[in-house]
Parts: sequence; structure tokens; C-alpha cells
Amino acid sequence: MPEFLKVITTDEFVERLGRFARLPSECVPLDAALYRTVAEDVLALEDLPVSARSAVDGYAVRAEDTFGASDSFPALLEVVAEIGMGILPDGAVGPGQAAQIPTGGFLPLGADAVVMVEYTNRAGESSIEVTRPVTSGVNVQEAGEDVKSGAIVVPRGRQVRSQEIGLLAALGFTEVRVYRRPRVAVISTGDEVVPIESTPKPGQIRDANAHTVSALVRAAGAEPIAFPIVPDDAGRLREVLQHGIVQADVTVLSGGSSVGTRDLMVETVTSLRGVELLAHGVAIRPGKPTLLARQGDKAVLGLPGHPVSALIVAQVFLDPFLGYLQGGSLRRGPMGQRVKARLSTSVHSTIGLEEFIRIRLDEGSDGTYCAQPVFGKSGMLSTMVKADGVLAVPMNLEGFARGDIVDVIRF
Amino acid sequence: MPEFLKVITTDEFVERLGRFARLPSECVPLDAALYRTVAEDVLALEDLPVSARSAVDGYAVRAEDTFGASDSFPALLEVVAEIGMGILPDGAVGPGQAAQIPTGGFLPLGADAVVMVEYTNRAGESSIEVTRPVTSGVNVQEAGEDVKSGAIVVPRGRQVRSQEIGLLAALGFTEVRVYRRPRVAVISTGDEVVPIESTPKPGQIRDANAHTVSALVRAAGAEPIAFPIVPDDAGRLREVLQHGIVQADVTVLSGGSSVGTRDLMVETVTSLRGVELLAHGVAIRPGKPTLLARQGDKAVLGLPGHPVSALIVAQVFLDPFLGYLQGGSLRRGPMGQRVKARLSTSVHSTIGLEEFIRIRLDEGSDGTYCAQPVFGKSGMLSTMVKADGVLAVPMNLEGFARGDIVDVIRF
Repeated sequence: MPEFLKVITTDEFVERLGRFARLPSECVPLDAALYRTVAEDVLALEDLPVSARSAVDGYAVRAEDTFGASDSFPALLEVVAEIGMGILPDGAVGPGQAAQIPTGGFLPLGADAVVMVEYTNRAGESSIEVTRPVTSGVNVQEAGEDVKSGAIVVPRGRQVRSQEIGLLAALGFTEVRVYRRPRVAVISTGDEVVPIESTPKPGQIRDANAHTVSALVRAAGAEPIAFPIVPDDAGRLREVLQHGIVQADVTVLSGGSSVGTRDLMVETVTSLRGVELLAHGVAIRPGKPTLLARQGDKAVLGLPGHPVSALIVAQVFLDPFLGYLQGGSLRRGPMGQRVKARLSTSVHSTIGLEEFIRIRLDEGSDGTYCAQPVFGKSGMLSTMVKADGVLAVPMNLEGFARGDIVDVIRF
Repeated sequence: MPEFLKVITTDEFVERLGRFARLPSECVPLDAALYRTVAEDVLALEDLPVSARSAVDGYAVRAEDTFGASDSFPALLEVVAEIGMGILPDGAVGPGQAAQIPTGGFLPLGADAVVMVEYTNRAGESSIEVTRPVTSGVNVQEAGEDVKSGAIVVPRGRQVRSQEIGLLAALGFTEVRVYRRPRVAVISTGDEVVPIESTPKPGQIRDANAHTVSALVRAAGAEPIAFPIVPDDAGRLREVLQHGIVQADVTVLSGGSSVGTRDLMVETVTSLRGVELLAHGVAIRPGKPTLLARQGDKAVLGLPGHPVSALIVAQVFLDPFLGYLQGGSLRRGPMGQRVKARLSTSVHSTIGLEEFIRIRLDEGSDGTYCAQPVFGKSGMLSTMVKADGVLAVPMNLEGFARGDIVDVIRF
């Protein structure tokens, strides 16, 4: 019962993921757009601010009235108005006049600068002395200075952060057009697999994969759809798989660490009408027997059954793929932060496989990191929990030496 | 109308945030625990795996029966069983016997090693030749090898990732005890402020702050509670503020860029019964007139009214504070990834203030980053959207020179 995998590189695998089209866009309420990717340029429909505002507490003036003012020779101005917040002044400031104005207050007609309150003295009931000159525009935020009507406020492809929400809110956008979230069918297979709620009988194991994959899907901003566990039965698997493809954009199968169940998975996937097998076998460790297929626009990703392999493959391919479907760029994962660290011990890898080695990061008092490989057999889930990230050893390297500075990707 | 701020350092402000107690814990379903912080050590209640399993496809054997086996002198073993997935074998493997076993299959009694199928040949109906010797434990994952019953699986204080969910699922945990999410009342104040849905009349502005703060609160894993906009009226503000304190763990006020409204905020906060003012004024730019108070266990954070200042202060203090309340460590934010970058131009800062300069990061072809300060007046929200992060210039520095390598914090 030998196994025939046509092993491709991780780059080739990513290229095949890129053959799928991005998802269509949808309008969502502004507050729901956090971390979503904007699907079209958002153009301002008005100036921000809509008219000139004061940047300080002080007096709105005609700048020329203050030219030459100093402590010894202050300019004397008549205070003709007190501008409240939220009230656009209707009267104008004429020559020799000033209007008291708070920070954020809208400038009255006639005024073109603001003198800070610190540089004024009260002079009687309705006059002030100005002790510093201002030029036109000083302490004023001009209309359209922040954003001009018609300008691109948030470009297509930008992931929405708090500040994008703030700027869109300030401009009156209550909705924003973003890429739709992928729906992901999560299907575990195997006669021995039982739901985590149940007490496994002798020989059974709990379905960890459904939960790790669903968590990763959720973390990627996508929506997992839980399916019941499927036994190792071609007919039943075929039926559930087709349901997954109909309901979801991406169907993730896991199960099949033995050759027999892996064969069942690939045979069942390829037996579906219109399915094209894009990849079966990728040159990574762990995770070699990974499968990618399509039925029209719908993707099917077959993960190895081992929970560790399944999780690594999901981080390396599924996470960036879900980001890509939502408008992000596509590259090999994990998608976490890269940290430079010094290897505490040499690591060995097989030529021809890109190997992902679990790493614990220890931060030194000088802010540098030491990368400590996490020992233990590759199938142990506890090694994933002990690790802070992974080190990817490229296909063409036999490993790294103790003391090498390497890139660790946090996960 | 001068303003009296007793300005403290960011470190002192963080120390005052640390005077609040962390929130109590709660049990949540396992799948809802993603990114939450575990509130107590989780101990395994059983071994993982619960009994020895095969790590390969092959034959379960008594290792001593294979000693000395080779291609020229294979060991001949009788195949007495075929172990299925999910079926714990009841028969035992005796001397001279073997049982066919798939990857993940549970070892039958008597067997202590597995020979890979590649190192066997079929010899008649019910026998195999073994061509490589194995020692005890080879290709076997022993009971408890991944996790031993009683061991700490996930330590207190750990933020839950996909892999923690996987390991907890494998061990049968359907719930996990995590710190409760903070509830955050988000209150905007100001006569001129109107909801983003409405068309501002002349002199009015839209309430950007409520949306930026709520987005940041959500991103920090906390729950924003939206309050209606409060006019600049002491009685009304007092009433809403007290509602916020009752309903939420943290009440965030924003508004008051003018001295008058800022005075109103601090007077109203301190007029509430049992309120202790912990800070009013912090040595940062932007964001100096920030306010922190407590009423019992409840925190009140007063943000500046300028949307940019409000957002920076929220990133510097509110984000880490919300993480701390949920079990995280407490330090000055922003909490994003730190990137080393070369400054494209020198930046100037005021001695005595920790200044946060908005930075655009450009990645060079060699993977290094160039840090380009984003120009424009500090009050412009668009500068936050153009920026990838901030550079914090410490209080005691006048700035950095062009070409300096600096730490940029992504936001």
C-alpha cells in the first residue's frame, strides 16, 4: 500500500493558493470594519475640517492688527464676541476687533489667525492687549487641511485600524465596503475520533483538530462552520465534503495520519464531480501529505491527521490564504512577528524539506533573544504550547549552527 | 482661566494604573477562550496519550524478536491481528508474533515497538519478514509522553492561542477559567459634538472619538458600552459619568480640548462621591491633559478631546491597562510590534515630555526599514492613517538625528 505524493515546494503551494479569486466585497457598519480589508478606495465627500478652526484657546483676530505687538507696545483690540463650541459665529471680526475663541472653535468671518490667551491681557471690560504678533493662519486649522474633499481617505487593500475608523467617522461614513469574511467548513475524519465532550473509550481519541483549526480560522477573521466527525467511510465522507463545499468558501479536512485513511481522503476528494486536484504533497516537515483541490471557486484543504502537523500546515498555508481571500497579500506563513534570535544549540534538517522547528524565545537583559529549540517528538501537542514560535529551515540547508542569528516567527 | 495640571511621567502614570486590581475570573467555553488569559494553572487529569500508540504504519512487535534482523537474515513473525483505528486490541502479541498497525493505532498488549512497513516483506498468508531490528519503544508514543496526568498543561497568565485550545481539547477540557473581559463605558462630551450619522450643522463636528476608542477597546479584547453624547453641562455629565462607573469597569471620557471643557471634566469627576483623583496631567505629547481617577475598583480615564491626542493616549495607556485587567503585564503602550528603522530625517522633541512622533515605515529591498516622520499638524487624523507606527522620544532627549537607528512601534 505505498503512497504516491507528487511533492511540490512551499512556494509552488502558495502559487496554487493564489489561483483562487479573492472574495467579493460587502458593506458593513463602520464599527464592524475593524481589522477587515477595505475593498475600494474611500474618497472624502467633504473637507475636514469643514471650515477653519482654532487650534488653541485665545482670540481670533485679523493678523495684520497684531503686527509689531510686544510687551512694551501691545496691540489694543476690542472684543466683539465670545465664540462658543458648536456655534458658527455669524458676526464678523472687523479691523481692530477680536473674538474670544476656545480650542476647536470655528473662526468667525474676517479673522485669519488666533492669538494664544497667554499672549493677551485683559484691558477693561471689552478690550484686550495683544503682546505677540501672529501672521495669517497661525494657530488655525484651515478648512480641508486634514482631508480635502475628493481625496483618498483610506486606500483599497488597507486593513482597518482604530485610526481609519476615526477618520471615516469624522467624515461621516457609517458604513465601509470591505472584503467578505471567508466561511470555512471544518471537518474532522477518523473512526477513532470522538467529540471532546465525550469520554473516549479505549482506543479512541478526542477531536483536537476541529478546535485548533476553528480557533485559527477565527483568529484569521474568518467564520468556522463546525461539522460532525466523519467516520472512515468513503460514502459518508463524500456526502459531508460536498455539503462543506456548498456551504463554505474553504473546506478544511483533517484526519488520516495512516496511509489508509490518507488514501481515503484523496480518493474521496478527487471522486467529486468537477474537482481539480491542485496539490498532494508539499515539501515541508511536519505536514508533507497536505492536499489542495478546487471545485469551481471553492477550495478544499486536506490537513494531516496529527494535531501538530495539522496546526503547522494551517499556520503555514491556511492562515495566509484566509487573509488573501479577504484582500491581504499572499505569502507563506506563519504570519506572526519575526524576531532575530541567537540559536542556543545547532538544529539539523533534511535537504529537500522546509522544516519548521518549534522554538522557545528567552529575552536577555540586553533585549536580545535566545532561540531554544523545543525538544520532544514532533507529534507532541505540548511542544506547540511550550513554543513561542518556529524557525523555518529552508529546503537547501542541512540546518543551522549553535550561535547563528536566525529569524524566529512568533505564533 | 489658567489650568493647573500636576504633570507626572508616563512611568508614574503606569504605576497608578497598576494600583487597580485585575478583574475576577470566569469559566468560558473552550472555543471562546482564544486570546483570553488563563486565570489559574490548568492541570492534566489524565495521560496524553492515554495509552501507547504507534507513530508509523507497520507492525507492532516484541522488540527482542527483531534483534539481529537484516535483509540477508530477516526475522520471521506470525501476523496474529490487524489493529484498526479506534479499536484497542484485546489480544496480546506473544513471542514470534506481530500485529499490523496504522499510524495512531493503540499498541496491543505484549508489543513494545513498531517496525515500519518499509522494513517488512510479506511471507505467505499470515507471516512477515522483518529486515531491520527495533529496540523497545521505537516508533511508539508512550502513554503520558505528551502530557503526564497532574502536569501543568497551560500556566496561569498564558494568553490562549490555537495550540493551547488544541491541547486542552485533546485532554477533554470543554471550558477554561480566564480573566473576565473589561466592560468599558465610552462617553464623548461637548456641545459641538454630534453622532456620525447626523449631518453637522455649521460649527458642529462628528463624534470620531467614540468610534476610535470603541474600536481600540474591542481590539484589546474588552467590551465597549456606547453612551449618548453629553453636552458641556456639569449636572448632565455627572449623571452620565456615574452611570458609566456603575455599569463598567473602566469609564473613558473624551472631550474638552479647550480649557473650559477640560476644567468641567476634572471638576465633575472629582465632585463625585468617593472619587480619588490619581493623575491629572502626564508628560507626553500629544496627550498632556490626561486624567485618571478611581471610585472604589472602578477606573475613570479622561482623554483629551482632540481625536489624535485621544487615540495616542488610548494606545499608550488604555490598551495596556485593558490587557492588564485581563491578566496581562502592564507597561507603557503602544503594544504593537517593535521594528528597528533608520530615521530619514532628524526629529526634534521637547525636554520634559515623552513625545510620540508618527512614522511611516518603508521596507528596503534588503529587509531593513526606513522611518519617515509623517508631517502635518499634530491634530490631523489623516496623519494617523498615513502612519504605520510611532517613535517615542524619551523625556530627556531633544530628539534623534537623521540616520539614527530607532525603535518604531507599529500601531
